[in-house]
Amino acid sequence: MSHSPKDQAFAERVGASFAKQGLMETIGAQLLRVEPGEVDIALPVTRAVSQQHGFVHAGAVATIADSACGYAALTLMPAGAGVLTAEFKINLMAPAAGDRLVAEGRVVKSGRLLTVAQAEVHAEAAGRRKLVAMLTATLVAVEGREGIAD
Amino acid sequence: MSHSPKDQAFAERVGASFAKQGLMETIGAQLLRVEPGEVDIALPVTRAVSQQHGFVHAGAVATIADSACGYAALTLMPAGAGVLTAEFKINLMAPAAGDRLVAEGRVVKSGRLLTVAQAEVHAEAAGRRKLVAMLTATLVAVEGREGIAD
Amino acid sequence: MSHSPKDQAFAERVGASFAKQGLMETIGAQLLRVEPGEVDIALPVTRAVSQQHGFVHAGAVATIADSACGYAALTLMPAGAGVLTAEFKINLMAPAAGDRLVAEGRVVKSGRLLTVAQAEVHAEAAGRRKLVAMLTATLVAVEGREGIAD
Amino acid sequence: MSHSPKDQAFAERVGASFAKQGLMETIGAQLLRVEPGEVDIALPVTRAVSQQHGFVHAGAVATIADSACGYAALTLMPAGAGVLTAEFKINLMAPAAGDRLVAEGRVVKSGRLLTVAQAEVHAEAAGRRKLVAMLTATLVAVEGREGIAD
Repeated sequence: MSHSPKDQAFAERVGASFAKQGLMETIGAQLLRVEPGEVDIALPVTRAVSQQHGFVHAGAVATIADSACGYAALTLMPAGAGVLTAEFKINLMAPAAGDRLVAEGRVVKSGRLLTVAQAEVHAEAAGRRKLVAMLTATLVAVEGREGIAD
Repeated sequence: MSHSPKDQAFAERVGASFAKQGLMETIGAQLLRVEPGEVDIALPVTRAVSQQHGFVHAGAVATIADSACGYAALTLMPAGAGVLTAEFKINLMAPAAGDRLVAEGRVVKSGRLLTVAQAEVHAEAAGRRKLVAMLTATLVAVEGREGIAD
Repeated sequence: MSHSPKDQAFAERVGASFAKQGLMETIGAQLLRVEPGEVDIALPVTRAVSQQHGFVHAGAVATIADSACGYAALTLMPAGAGVLTAEFKINLMAPAAGDRLVAEGRVVKSGRLLTVAQAEVHAEAAGRRKLVAMLTATLVAVEGREGIAD
Repeated sequence: MSHSPKDQAFAERVGASFAKQGLMETIGAQLLRVEPGEVDIALPVTRAVSQQHGFVHAGAVATIADSACGYAALTLMPAGAGVLTAEFKINLMAPAAGDRLVAEGRVVKSGRLLTVAQAEVHAEAAGRRKLVAMLTATLVAVEGREGIAD
C-alpha cells in the first residue's frame, strides 16, 4: 500500500517525538527508519530488558512494536495532531533472543479518527532473522487537546 | 473464584522469578502482593517510563500487567513448571498519570496447558484510584524444557 | 459501576435495533435483559450454530458477545447516535455446549467517542452455569452519519 | 512462507470438517480454496447475516475469518489431530457491504501445540475488493481427545 503524508515534515516530527519517549531511552531502543506509513525500531538484547528465563520480556517486545505502530500512524497525520494507542494485541511466537530485535510497524488502514497498524518483530542473530512476535494496534488521532501533540 | 496452589512454596517461587526479570528492575517495578491466582505489581510514575506526552508509555503499562498475569498463573502451577506468555491484549482507557500504577493480575481460567488471566491497571494519585487499562493474557505452562522453569 | 443513560428510551432503542439484526434471528439469539450499561443475550445450543465437533462455533459465541457489548454501549449513548464495533478479542476457555449460552455485556469505560465493554459467556445446562468465553470490545459512537443510527 | 502438510489428504479432511460445521451452512458460507497453510471462505452478503444498519454483522465477519484461520491451521496438522480456537482478535476497518465477503486465512507460525494464523476479509462488489477486517487467531492442536478430530 502506498501512503501520502499530509505533513511533509513527518520524519522530523517522528524523530522529535521519539526523543521525548523516556522509555525508549531507558530500554535502549533506537529509531531505525521512518517512511510514510512505515517505522522501524531496534532494541539490543540485554539483561536490562530480560524476563526470568533470559529472553526479552514480552513487555519490552510489545513496547517497541507499539511505538513502531504509533509512529507509523503519526507519519500520515496532519501537523498538530497527536497519536494515542487505544488498544493493541500481541502474539509471541518464539522466545525473543539473539543480538537485537527489530519491530517493523506498518499502517494497515488510515482513517480520520482511527488507524489500524501492525508490527512484526524479528530477532536478529549472526545475520539471521526470525519472526518472534506480531502486534496489531488501534491508534487514535487527537487534535486540539492540550499537551497531546507530536 | 478460589484457587488451590499445587506448590505450597508459590510465593517464594514468584518472588525469586520476579527478581530475575531484568526489565522489572530497569523500569522500577515492585512485587506488591502474591496470593493463589492473584499477583499485584506496582510501578512508580517517572520520566524513565514515559511516552512523548509525559504519560506512562503503553508498553510500560503492558509490561507490569503482563507480568502480573504471568505470575498469577504461576502461583497455580506445579513445582518445576515455567510460564510463557502466548499472547495478550490491552485496552488503554485513560492516560496513565499520577504517582504510581498498580497492576492486579487475576487468573480467570486455569488449565493444564493454557491459563487465561486478566489484569486491571489503576493509576493512584493523592489517595485516589482510576482504572487506566485492562489486559487479557493467554499463558502457556512449560514443563521439562531446559532453561524454562520458574 | 453505576451508569446514567443520556436517553431514557434506551431500552426501547436497544430492542428496536436488536430486532433489525438479521443475524440474531438467523442464529436464534434472544435479547434477555437491558439495563444501563448492561445487556444480556441468550443463544439456544442447536446444530444450526455448531462447529465440526458439535460445540457452538466460536463465531456464534463471538456474535452474541459482540452484540451484548455493542448494546451495553448503546444504552449509554445520546439519542441519535449509532454504535459500531472497532475491534474485539475473545478467549474461548471451554467447549461451548449445554442447553443455551448467555452473553452478559458490561460497559467498562464509557467515553464520548470510544467505549470499552466486556462480555462473559456462560453455558447453561441442567441449571448449572460454566464460563466458556470472555470478550473485550472497543465500540465507536457514530453521530450524524447517514444510515448509522440505532 | 511455504508449508509442508503432514497429511497428504489435508484438502479432503478440511472439506469433510467444513461440511460438519452447521454454522457455515446456516449463514451460507462456502469453502473456496484449500492449500497448505491457506484456506479461503466466502460469504454472500444477505439480510440473514446483517446487523442493524444493513452491513454484515461483525460476528459473521469473525465467523468466516475464524474458520479460515482454523482450517488453514488444520491443513498442516497430522492425521487424527483436531483444532480448536483458543482466542482471536479482529479489527473491523470498514463497513462490510457489497456482493460477498472473502476471508483468506494464512498460517503465520505453525507449532506442535499452538498455531498462529491471520485472516484478511475483503468485501467484493462489482469486481472491486476492499479490505474490511483483519483477524489474528491462536489455534490449539488437540490429539487423542475423544470427539475432537477433524
